[in-house]
Amino acid sequence: MSEGTEYENERREDSNTIFVGSRPFMNYVTGVVMQFTTQGATEVCVKARGKFISRAVDIAEVTCKRFLEGQIEVKNIRINSEEFTNNENRLVRVSTIEVFLGKKSQ
Amino acid sequence: MSEGTEYENERREDSNTIFVGSRPFMNYVTGVVMQFTTQGATEVCVKARGKFISRAVDIAEVTCKRFLEGQIEVKNIRINSEEFTNNENRLVRVSTIEVFLGKKSQ
Repeated sequence: MSEGTEYENERREDSNTIFVGSRPFMNYVTGVVMQFTTQGATEVCVKARGKFISRAVDIAEVTCKRFLEGQIEVKNIRINSEEFTNNENRLVRVSTIEVFLGKKSQ
Repeated sequence: MSEGTEYENERREDSNTIFVGSRPFMNYVTGVVMQFTTQGATEVCVKARGKFISRAVDIAEVTCKRFLEGQIEVKNIRINSEEFTNNENRLVRVSTIEVFLGKKSQ
């Protein structure tokens, strides 16, 4: 458990993560593009939970295929699920996705 | 175009693909479980487009973590996008996901 947490902290420092929610679609795309261009990131993680997973995939695809075409690519994709107790005291499972984008090797 | 079609046919023969849509959630989970158990498949691909991508991830997670826990795992995940002209004659892009599940190596 503690190893998992340490790993999470490590990842968060290493990489630039964009959490996808209900803000306008282009906000996230611009966020990813900026990380690579003005922030000089070599890897950006697009992360989402539940119904926002489809959006995270759209954001990754539009960034790779349109805005930074030929420059970045999908390096890795991980899916997982988190369990938590909701406010009706029921155990609920929600899926997550992490799409790792990185500079294309020349 | 014909190459694409041949590739599709090839894939369909090679692997057991479940296309996720709007049918009840458990239909798809049962479909995947049956492929592994009664059909003896070693790999099953869960595929979806657009808003159904989140569902495909849920189905993969529930199958791996609950119904066939310890027996199958996520082997690979691919995302892509398809472009097509909709009935208003506009070019539309839709994202796709393929989650490849396989028997866990002992």
